[in-house]
Amino acid sequence: MPAIASLECSRCHQHISADQPRNVCPHCAGTLYVRYDLDAIRAHAQRPEPGGLQSMWRYSAVLPDVTPVTLGEGWTPMLPSRRHPSLFVKEEATNPTGAFKARGMSAAVSMAKHYGLKKLATPSAGNAAGALAAYAAAAGIEAHLFMPKDVPFANYLEGVAYGAQVTLVDGLISDCGRIVAETIQSQRTEAAAGRLAPEDVWFDVSTLKEPFRVEGKKTMGYELVEQLGWEYPDAVFYPTGGGVGLIGMWKAFEEMEALGWVKPGKRPKMIAVQASGCAPIARAFREGAHVSQMFENAATFAAGLRVPKPYGDSIILDIVRESEGTVVALPDAAILDSLLDWARHEGLMLCPEGAAATAAYDYLLDIGFLKPTDRVVLFNTGSGLKYTDMIAEAMQLERPTQKQYPVRTPVGGIITPV
Amino acid sequence: MPAIASLECSRCHQHISADQPRNVCPHCAGTLYVRYDLDAIRAHAQRPEPGGLQSMWRYSAVLPDVTPVTLGEGWTPMLPSRRHPSLFVKEEATNPTGAFKARGMSAAVSMAKHYGLKKLATPSAGNAAGALAAYAAAAGIEAHLFMPKDVPFANYLEGVAYGAQVTLVDGLISDCGRIVAETIQSQRTEAAAGRLAPEDVWFDVSTLKEPFRVEGKKTMGYELVEQLGWEYPDAVFYPTGGGVGLIGMWKAFEEMEALGWVKPGKRPKMIAVQASGCAPIARAFREGAHVSQMFENAATFAAGLRVPKPYGDSIILDIVRESEGTVVALPDAAILDSLLDWARHEGLMLCPEGAAATAAYDYLLDIGFLKPTDRVVLFNTGSGLKYTDMIAEAMQLERPTQKQYPVRTPVGGIITPV
Repeated sequence: MPAIASLECSRCHQHISADQPRNVCPHCAGTLYVRYDLDAIRAHAQRPEPGGLQSMWRYSAVLPDVTPVTLGEGWTPMLPSRRHPSLFVKEEATNPTGAFKARGMSAAVSMAKHYGLKKLATPSAGNAAGALAAYAAAAGIEAHLFMPKDVPFANYLEGVAYGAQVTLVDGLISDCGRIVAETIQSQRTEAAAGRLAPEDVWFDVSTLKEPFRVEGKKTMGYELVEQLGWEYPDAVFYPTGGGVGLIGMWKAFEEMEALGWVKPGKRPKMIAVQASGCAPIARAFREGAHVSQMFENAATFAAGLRVPKPYGDSIILDIVRESEGTVVALPDAAILDSLLDWARHEGLMLCPEGAAATAAYDYLLDIGFLKPTDRVVLFNTGSGLKYTDMIAEAMQLERPTQKQYPVRTPVGGIITPV
Repeated sequence: MPAIASLECSRCHQHISADQPRNVCPHCAGTLYVRYDLDAIRAHAQRPEPGGLQSMWRYSAVLPDVTPVTLGEGWTPMLPSRRHPSLFVKEEATNPTGAFKARGMSAAVSMAKHYGLKKLATPSAGNAAGALAAYAAAAGIEAHLFMPKDVPFANYLEGVAYGAQVTLVDGLISDCGRIVAETIQSQRTEAAAGRLAPEDVWFDVSTLKEPFRVEGKKTMGYELVEQLGWEYPDAVFYPTGGGVGLIGMWKAFEEMEALGWVKPGKRPKMIAVQASGCAPIARAFREGAHVSQMFENAATFAAGLRVPKPYGDSIILDIVRESEGTVVALPDAAILDSLLDWARHEGLMLCPEGAAATAAYDYLLDIGFLKPTDRVVLFNTGSGLKYTDMIAEAMQLERPTQKQYPVRTPVGGIITPV
């Protein structure tokens, strides 16, 4: 595992030290990228062996040199479609907490533990909160989660079950983010005045507001290339809420090229997928803009896509354009249709966000943006099982009356022969 | 992949051909085991290479020679406990459909497709139904599922979403099994009278009533031994409803010994774990009986353990005794406590069945049946996310009022620049 050379601002490109925990660039508030001495890594480290570690930490050569807080995240299956011979689904549902968010939180919490942080906070559309709660529990660190109150119930339950402090907010993730930022600001004031111990000030692990969630998520880029025999596909479909996965994969491609790990060739077209009910990136892309505008009245059953103004919007838009990709947003009805189509014909119950990507794939084939022979990797970012209520409601499937099992009422003692 | 030498009855030990689909032994109704020429396999096949296939089909040398219907099942992580240095959790939640049942159904549906079967039926406590629905969808085969109406809602949704025919029964899995058996009996009568096409008669893939679900589940035994460096652990904890996993693992150990794949040593103590509210095996074991009695008024929030009279009861009891293991049943309150303990201190939200095993582990350490230094593998048979409602209810966690997203009401059209 390499030492971190520096943290580089994605906006003003100044370099700062990683000796202490950092959020955004102190000069311009840009997102910070972790930089290593890639020449040194190239000289000493090899691509992972086929039989290597069965988690994202198989890429330890390009991850920070700390003791990982790991629950087995990453190294997820790449499933071939049964109907589209050139299409592969990167199945992120198999991650701990059932979503790709585990990768970023494994990296971020590993670093938080390394830095000795005691209290982490995050706003979340749902899955990031569940993942932070699990990794914080594993690391013995306190977690404070702020989610919209209409978050999938599984995410709420995860937070509570893992022992995190959970606040449900009557608003969107942007409102949750504001509350976290304001709370930390007032904690800092208190700490500066000596009324709060410095270790009691929360550390904000919001998307793109600390450098290590990108590091975890970049492993999706390494994996998809390794699983295709160290070759790029023609296109990558990525359901885009905050967009960190897309940003992380692009960083991975840059690093892999510098390391000589990937066969020379054109990088994949990056296809960002949104829901029509919350499509700030799609709108900005269509308008030729370099940043997005707050998407008012955001509403979609694909909870992870309910991010009305992603912090990394300009980075996402740059990557999509540089890659000659595109951005597609689809109505919820089309997303549900694709979800059921994949369940019934491929045996995969995608999450709504993943089904947005399959719907977008069909659409871009239809209009000729892609050919059926183009090699495509499509991310199912999480388990459909986390969206049971939302999928059932979308299907208008009635919930059968269920018998209650009052767990606290004893139904017998321990039965054992010894 | 080897040819099947024969199907051997576990009860009367007669051998019959696998040339046509079979349920139980035609002579005595015993469960049929798949037999191969292990000497021939030993002569020609090696243990899988470290970089081999990342699914249970890495053990193709000891699985039937057919084209697998695969969704990436098996080769699940073996997670070390953070608190018990000799304890490992075999994390079956990462399987397709979020449960170990995927293994058996991958094998059974692969064989069904090989035999040209068109309609499969199963009774299920929940997860087997979800798995059959997914694999049948992948294979283009019709699935008929019968589940208790108090099954976890996720299992009901899975069945419907994957396009299976789902019947919710006001009873237990035993009642569901009776309905399946009676339906098939009457279909056979109809077919014999020429009033129903033979291919429209359902094939029963009930636990232990066809030979291949055991074949799929035996891969858990191969995997745990391979992941421990081809050595046996001291004990295996297995949440036992129908008990097929336990039976499959024991078969794997027999085969591995015949093949010379496992280092010589004592087989692990097999610890079957049940809930006090449905503990037929625990009762029979305590009473020294060789079969179980129907457990009346079975009730536990661990839905997968609600099997009041397992078909393989005598096989399970024999294995537990031969291995010098034991059977433990714990009250739901103890199971819930262990579930929350593991969530809060290990970062794993086990399913209730898995938490029964962790509670049993604590108990057997307490009473000295096991030592803390004993190397133990404990199965978390499925994802806690499939039990969201049951865990929330057990925790008395209230469901926040949620905004509805009426998917069929358009909230905008496709947004795309092309």
